[in-house]
Amino acid sequence: MKIGIVGGGQLGQMMALAGYPLGFEFQFVDRTADIPAARVAPVLSGDLHDVGLLRALAEGNDVVTFDWENVSVSALSTATRGRRVAPPLRALAAAQDRIAEKRTFERLSIPTTRFAPVESQRQLKRAVSRIGLPGVLKTRRLGYDGKGQSVLRSPDDVDAAWTALGGVPLLYEEFVPFDCEVSVIGARGRDGSIVIYPLNRNYHADGILRLTLAPWDAPRLSRAAASYLRRLLEAFHYVGVLTLELFVCRGRLIANEMAPRVHNSGHWTIEGAVTSQFENHLRAISGLPLGSAAARGHAAMINLIGKLPPRRRLLAEPGLHWHDYGKQPRPGRKLGHCTIIEHSARNRTSRVRQLLTRLYPQLAVHP
Amino acid sequence: MKIGIVGGGQLGQMMALAGYPLGFEFQFVDRTADIPAARVAPVLSGDLHDVGLLRALAEGNDVVTFDWENVSVSALSTATRGRRVAPPLRALAAAQDRIAEKRTFERLSIPTTRFAPVESQRQLKRAVSRIGLPGVLKTRRLGYDGKGQSVLRSPDDVDAAWTALGGVPLLYEEFVPFDCEVSVIGARGRDGSIVIYPLNRNYHADGILRLTLAPWDAPRLSRAAASYLRRLLEAFHYVGVLTLELFVCRGRLIANEMAPRVHNSGHWTIEGAVTSQFENHLRAISGLPLGSAAARGHAAMINLIGKLPPRRRLLAEPGLHWHDYGKQPRPGRKLGHCTIIEHSARNRTSRVRQLLTRLYPQLAVHP
Repeated sequence: MKIGIVGGGQLGQMMALAGYPLGFEFQFVDRTADIPAARVAPVLSGDLHDVGLLRALAEGNDVVTFDWENVSVSALSTATRGRRVAPPLRALAAAQDRIAEKRTFERLSIPTTRFAPVESQRQLKRAVSRIGLPGVLKTRRLGYDGKGQSVLRSPDDVDAAWTALGGVPLLYEEFVPFDCEVSVIGARGRDGSIVIYPLNRNYHADGILRLTLAPWDAPRLSRAAASYLRRLLEAFHYVGVLTLELFVCRGRLIANEMAPRVHNSGHWTIEGAVTSQFENHLRAISGLPLGSAAARGHAAMINLIGKLPPRRRLLAEPGLHWHDYGKQPRPGRKLGHCTIIEHSARNRTSRVRQLLTRLYPQLAVHP
Repeated sequence: MKIGIVGGGQLGQMMALAGYPLGFEFQFVDRTADIPAARVAPVLSGDLHDVGLLRALAEGNDVVTFDWENVSVSALSTATRGRRVAPPLRALAAAQDRIAEKRTFERLSIPTTRFAPVESQRQLKRAVSRIGLPGVLKTRRLGYDGKGQSVLRSPDDVDAAWTALGGVPLLYEEFVPFDCEVSVIGARGRDGSIVIYPLNRNYHADGILRLTLAPWDAPRLSRAAASYLRRLLEAFHYVGVLTLELFVCRGRLIANEMAPRVHNSGHWTIEGAVTSQFENHLRAISGLPLGSAAARGHAAMINLIGKLPPRRRLLAEPGLHWHDYGKQPRPGRKLGHCTIIEHSARNRTSRVRQLLTRLYPQLAVHP
């Protein structure tokens, strides 16, 4: 079976690496051929809104998927008409539009922040007075890793935030004084079967994920998160891997956003789960039975950002798994990650502290 | 770092899949481009004795290795002069020549079978009378998976065996009425550090490996096997992964042969060990620290031979890991393998029995 993937970053690369043993072949499309997936599979390069390019991918492969959610839904929909594409494009469309996403959460009784659409400075003022301060002004589309956001703390911030972001559709959202961030990842097969991975505890800095601990031992929250994810998977008749990011706020979960794809907070599943998120995504979209999402030990995943630390020194760490995406260094860029698996959550915490102190002594991440 | 690999079968393919996360790039040479590794890396195709072809590989890469031991040592030696090649070619040469191999075992006090070189029918008769019957006549070079061997049970078999195999250098070897077959796999780094995987219990049928259970719980034999392997690794100033196959005969180990490469009986290490044999081979030859060879659970690896069983049905087995090499089916051909990891040796045995009964009901393999 041939799988066509839109976007050939590290997620696509790891999908291909997980998929070869299953007997799949891969082809990617991306804007350039200088991408992580190019090491492991052929790439068609061009504009990702080009229906002709996407159609070539669809026609040359048995199923089309994506490793990136900022793909044009309309181009992909036209290009894949009559052909198999997964996850479903209506889930992709909802994930691309923060308002559609929030309305989905509300419709499925998944707690989320209060919000209001903002298309003018006047609407912004009205939203601020209704929802209160502090709050976050966000672009309705195409934001990730903290880009396209502005926090409003006082009425004086309204004008500056509008100047920074105005001109595109926005939303104003209640600021949640959260205690921590978690995510839950699951897969739904073509036959409707669902597997859900243990809860991920995520640590961000400068809007970028730095560290994930999984399983995070919080049984009540885990159950709630799994229940919310299951509602989403079922509502969309989803096929593939779906990720839901949530805030923990005074012991309760508040959905932040969903990603209709494999996710950085699930990289630990490569060594830390019976079946990785990448393999389960491929199993799902190709109509194979899903694999167990159970954890193997207590995993920690540290993102390697901006510059790779010395590989030789890190590989001398017992049981450390190294993942170099083959990308050029650049400040803030995700270049790789490393994973350790420990026999207990306590060991995991102490090892992660040691590693973070050594790797990123300046970083304010304290597991 | 770029790694050039002579031979692009499933071993080479799995090496590349293990090596991309470490940041390596790969190039293969093989007789055709229709090989498992071609899915995951570029291939130069041509005659493997062609010094020019091998030199192109050596010049285009930082280190040369091989996934196959029937490479021409002299061509490889000429082609890699002044360049890095690992494992050492003197280990490869010893593994290619059953007599050099046996003499190595004897020199290192590693118990092995009695044997005699045979170059004529007269020498064969003399060897049979000295070593006794039953015995095995083998080609001195280029035999594997039971090919190029003939068992002699009575003096009447001498002529037929000579007719079948004579004309090339041979050896006659004591037939060992062994109780079972095991193998031990280890790696030695450039700095001389050594890691050794737990002992593998191997089950063959028709001369082909069918099943490996690891770790095999036999502490005394494990210690002896590890000690023999260590002697070999040190004697050759070895760099890379080395495999030693042994018979268990009345509670004692008898070395059968060595393979200067990653090995089929080590495929379980992909999911069943902290660091796979493929990753440790690459770490060794690239001068990186070796990773832990400790087991994660109790693994069983079943070879999929001749024809792949239905993937969908097998993947419905809890925790089953599927490895399809992407090869055309052919009787007796290794097309893939599957691995399960259990929490206890007892669970492993019962699951393997179920799987074998389902997959290969005719096969006489009884773990």
